Amino acid sequence: MSSVRPPDPRAVRSRDAALASARELLIEQGLAGLTHGAVAARSGISRATLYRHWPEPPDLVRATLALHITLSQSRPTGDLRADLLTELAGTRAMLHEPASEQGMRVMIERAAVDPKFAEVKEALYRSGTRVVRAILADAIARAELPAELDVDLAIDQLHGPLFFRRLVANRTFDLDYVHAVVDDFLRCHSTKPPRQQGIS
Amino acid sequence: MSSVRPPDPRAVRSRDAALASARELLIEQGLAGLTHGAVAARSGISRATLYRHWPEPPDLVRATLALHITLSQSRPTGDLRADLLTELAGTRAMLHEPASEQGMRVMIERAAVDPKFAEVKEALYRSGTRVVRAILADAIARAELPAELDVDLAIDQLHGPLFFRRLVANRTFDLDYVHAVVDDFLRCHSTKPPRQQGIS
Repeated sequence: MSSVRPPDPRAVRSRDAALASARELLIEQGLAGLTHGAVAARSGISRATLYRHWPEPPDLVRATLALHITLSQSRPTGDLRADLLTELAGTRAMLHEPASEQGMRVMIERAAVDPKFAEVKEALYRSGTRVVRAILADAIARAELPAELDVDLAIDQLHGPLFFRRLVANRTFDLDYVHAVVDDFLRCHSTKPPRQQGIS
Repeated sequence: MSSVRPPDPRAVRSRDAALASARELLIEQGLAGLTHGAVAARSGISRATLYRHWPEPPDLVRATLALHITLSQSRPTGDLRADLLTELAGTRAMLHEPASEQGMRVMIERAAVDPKFAEVKEALYRSGTRVVRAILADAIARAELPAELDVDLAIDQLHGPLFFRRLVANRTFDLDYVHAVVDDFLRCHSTKPPRQQGIS
């Protein structure tokens, strides 16, 4: 029996190959192309293996997005402006990386009609906003943001413009745009006197 | 020949029946359910008629959304805060009406992988932001907003939080939320001294 062996390197390679193919299909065709059959055909991994790792299509999308969210999250330093800029730069990167961008688009469409996608989306929303929520809570604790700040609204004001511009207006944007969103937010809410802030 | 007759009332009824069925299918199943075959089966309208009016599925989504956008748009009065509140209340209504909400979700997903959807989405984005753009331009002309205001960013800051909360966070929201978004925006950007603003 194989149950006491360490992870089989071939199994790891199979998993990576399957996710790479899933990623390509998601970028090229959206969710419609992301079937277990299509992933099997492209990756050469058996359907049985695919179903064992990812029983349903939402699991394939989740696997792709969860990796990107983990990679894009920053580690706050206690400097409010710098921390917001770093974290939103990660969000910007996710919105411009073809697989994670398309994964988010798929989630937005499917979550409204498929409970399994809705559940995956809720988990991704929570993990995707965890760091910015912590940054805001810490700044409130340091009295750099007002105690009465509506943190959920603040998250919408920080993330919302980025998502709207990329996914609704279908425009790309650069880091200057992220700076403008963060600096407007701080100008509106910061309890500290404004300082001269460059756009770069 | 029928070419000189006025519009046939039966044709109008057929068109309405087809759009009503398209709307139901969009709400229930998302884009996957919105095929000409399914609309024909539900509405009793022939496929030939459907293809004549709406050659492709994006045309069916566009017909649904265009109507909602037209209905939701307000007529500015020259009072910046009141105009923004009225216009964003219309956006809020679209985000909470099942057919237009689902239509926007479909557009967000499909526009990235289907050029025909991307074209329809661009047209809808332009018409959907036309009034708020006019409100902002008029306020700049009246010097109630600064001449250097980045209007595209301002549109993202006004619409972005609403779209993010409804389509990404998957939360509903009420008019108090719309007031908070507008009042924060004005507090940040208005050239007029702030006045006491109630939340209702």
